[in-house]
Amino acid sequence: MTTPTHVVSAGADLFADAVAEQAVAVTRVDWRPPMPGTEADLAVVAADPLRRDANQRALAAMLGVTAHLVDVAPASELLGLEPGQFLHAGPPIAWERASGPLRGALMGGAALEGLVEDPEDAVALFEKGSDVSLEPCHHRGTVGPMAGVVTPSMWMFVLEDLATGARTHCSLNEGLGKVLRYGAYGPEVLTRLRWMREVLGPLLQRAVRSTVDSTGPVDVTGILTQMLQMGDEAHNRNRAGTLMLLRDLAPAMVASGADASDVAESLRFIGGNDHFFLNLAMPACKLALDAARGIDGSTMVVAMARNGTDFGIQVAGTGDEWFTGPAQLADGLFLGDYGPDDANPDIGDSAITETAGIGGFAMATAPAIVRLVGGSVPDALATTRRMHEITLGENPRWTVPVLEFQGVPSGIDVTRVCRTGILPQINTGMAGRQAGVGQVGAGLVTPPAEIFPKALASLAERSRSRR
Amino acid sequence: MTTPTHVVSAGADLFADAVAEQAVAVTRVDWRPPMPGTEADLAVVAADPLRRDANQRALAAMLGVTAHLVDVAPASELLGLEPGQFLHAGPPIAWERASGPLRGALMGGAALEGLVEDPEDAVALFEKGSDVSLEPCHHRGTVGPMAGVVTPSMWMFVLEDLATGARTHCSLNEGLGKVLRYGAYGPEVLTRLRWMREVLGPLLQRAVRSTVDSTGPVDVTGILTQMLQMGDEAHNRNRAGTLMLLRDLAPAMVASGADASDVAESLRFIGGNDHFFLNLAMPACKLALDAARGIDGSTMVVAMARNGTDFGIQVAGTGDEWFTGPAQLADGLFLGDYGPDDANPDIGDSAITETAGIGGFAMATAPAIVRLVGGSVPDALATTRRMHEITLGENPRWTVPVLEFQGVPSGIDVTRVCRTGILPQINTGMAGRQAGVGQVGAGLVTPPAEIFPKALASLAERSRSRR
Repeated sequence: MTTPTHVVSAGADLFADAVAEQAVAVTRVDWRPPMPGTEADLAVVAADPLRRDANQRALAAMLGVTAHLVDVAPASELLGLEPGQFLHAGPPIAWERASGPLRGALMGGAALEGLVEDPEDAVALFEKGSDVSLEPCHHRGTVGPMAGVVTPSMWMFVLEDLATGARTHCSLNEGLGKVLRYGAYGPEVLTRLRWMREVLGPLLQRAVRSTVDSTGPVDVTGILTQMLQMGDEAHNRNRAGTLMLLRDLAPAMVASGADASDVAESLRFIGGNDHFFLNLAMPACKLALDAARGIDGSTMVVAMARNGTDFGIQVAGTGDEWFTGPAQLADGLFLGDYGPDDANPDIGDSAITETAGIGGFAMATAPAIVRLVGGSVPDALATTRRMHEITLGENPRWTVPVLEFQGVPSGIDVTRVCRTGILPQINTGMAGRQAGVGQVGAGLVTPPAEIFPKALASLAERSRSRR
Repeated sequence: MTTPTHVVSAGADLFADAVAEQAVAVTRVDWRPPMPGTEADLAVVAADPLRRDANQRALAAMLGVTAHLVDVAPASELLGLEPGQFLHAGPPIAWERASGPLRGALMGGAALEGLVEDPEDAVALFEKGSDVSLEPCHHRGTVGPMAGVVTPSMWMFVLEDLATGARTHCSLNEGLGKVLRYGAYGPEVLTRLRWMREVLGPLLQRAVRSTVDSTGPVDVTGILTQMLQMGDEAHNRNRAGTLMLLRDLAPAMVASGADASDVAESLRFIGGNDHFFLNLAMPACKLALDAARGIDGSTMVVAMARNGTDFGIQVAGTGDEWFTGPAQLADGLFLGDYGPDDANPDIGDSAITETAGIGGFAMATAPAIVRLVGGSVPDALATTRRMHEITLGENPRWTVPVLEFQGVPSGIDVTRVCRTGILPQINTGMAGRQAGVGQVGAGLVTPPAEIFPKALASLAERSRSRR
């Protein structure tokens, strides 16, 4: 009797192929060298006695949250934003280092708030700086797509984890093209924002409140479950999600007693904007990830966010510290005559979707997205599979039918990213580099690699100091 | 120099495997023997000089049609249906041979029309037969899901090919469970049908007509294009399609001047019934296939339909002749405590979707459907690939993203079915065997094999007589 031979092969295929040709069973392990200089910190964090349990708790906390739409109200009421205070996407940044699209959105926001008449006059206001202040959305329980500028009079969705009462917020989505979040601030942008403030916001407030009272709040996490079975990855495709929101709110909008022409116009506005639901998907993801914040020893990423200049991450085990590096240019498809030279580096809090396991992480369930962001269908399937290599687990609520209902890859693990060199894959819109331009395309992008070793170093330092 | 050896292997894998092991390039052809007794007719039809061109014309005619929703009105007006006239799904059948669910639907229909007070009393009416008549939907430019019973006072969608003015019709979808089309006829069924007649039908008429006048008629073929990118196969999954219809009609429903509570109730009714769009998908498919009727020499199937007793097909090259055999029992999943003994054989005109290349033929694009009809995700992908073996071409408008945007398999070819023995795959709902029960499940089914050799024989006979 011969003992069966079984070979485990890591790294290059040459050896595995040679053995397989001799009819020996081979298990291939996709091994890559760790990121340079991370070996010592990886060893420390791997040996951290808190790590395994902390990561299990962080993942479970994230997966345990369901987000419900409980209210719509102005940012001044909800977040205590005062005149002259502006929120923006990504990690902290000052006007001096702000990119074109962030500047454009701030200028439009200043005009919307009546701080200036002409958005161009706001440049002096922000350069002086004494009457205005900038703060990340994330620091006020909020997320903002692209520039992510929030001003006091903007109406916000309010999402709540009914089990804990925790809440997150996001503005209402304006649509595509020439819109504030892509840095445009022309008259059509301000006219639309004023209509959203005067008509859409108050109507949605009545509809959401009456829906809460009658059938209960809209289950945003549940809609996300459905969307992933309907070709949306909930970052650059939110078509089915938008339609389900419309279905859930339309009856209450009609019954609100509002003017029928305002209701009809609002239905057309939402129905005509496939991205409307993005501004619910994002705060739902933040609500889930916020539940995993502040868990000592956990190496799970709880936020990825970009301000158009810097890409930053926050990690469950490192408190409110941001680990930042330069935002990258996306590789993708351009609108009209725009090209790579017109694009600003990566911007927006929307990478919170990837942080929660959807968006680029769920591309396999949205193969049609390759027509928007580029790449091929096999790439889309491979991307989701690859993201499982850098995540702690799967989400049983959010599954991918074509991968036989496998849960989306959830809980980005700083140690796995450093150990494999595989970076999180993000789908994203591309803003014009110049303030005022608006959207120029959509594509695929990754974080700057160096932020993960930075986060790992902080985790290792905390681990050493606990000994 | 050695000439490279290349082997083409048809049939059993044994030979191909042996050759491949000797490092010879092998092209495997999935060959199966033709259906027994079809060899002579296959030879005649294959040699028919009209065939190739006729099939190209039939396929092009089908693929050239776009269906638009142009009106909603009662069957009495649209189809000239008189009191006592009933349409039903499938090929012609009399009361004596009608299955339980068809009888149940006819009994409910008779009560809806006021021919009897109690549906049970309609049995005598149909047994006597002198005051009532039965006719297939297909004979009046109509398709009906499941029992497919249409009575004069039911409101119908009207679909039009704007290029030719050709029209098809279908009733409004009632939802699932205890509904007339599944053979239920209890008070709740009749109450719902009366509300659809008094409230929903007239409201949809106003909304559709005003949409036609303002933004133009809803492009049903275009919605089908989108649905196939959103996890619907448009037979047993019509969720995205229903939502897009709601999006397109809701503004006009609101602006119709109708009572706000009726509008809100109608929005809830449509939004709460994921199958509402089925009754637009079906007549859109019929409109496309009707364009291919009456093309001498074409072996393309233009209708597959079941009345609960018989399964019938019609073919482009054989006029209005039906080729029928016994309807089969579906293999699938059952609701609640129901089991295989409770199910009626296959019923409904809804196999028009498969005839047009969607439904079971597009299962690859709707992998989540396996949770409703049974089977596995790999089965769903394999089914779409297999259906390409019995169809004339692909639909460039209706594509499957996960199969790298390949068009759905379109134009079932009687000769290919007979030559390969591969039967069309149909997704279907299952009605209870007893009149009055309603839906008991959903599953997968095929036509009875013998109807394809029957159609082939007729094609061969016509070919011989043309010589």
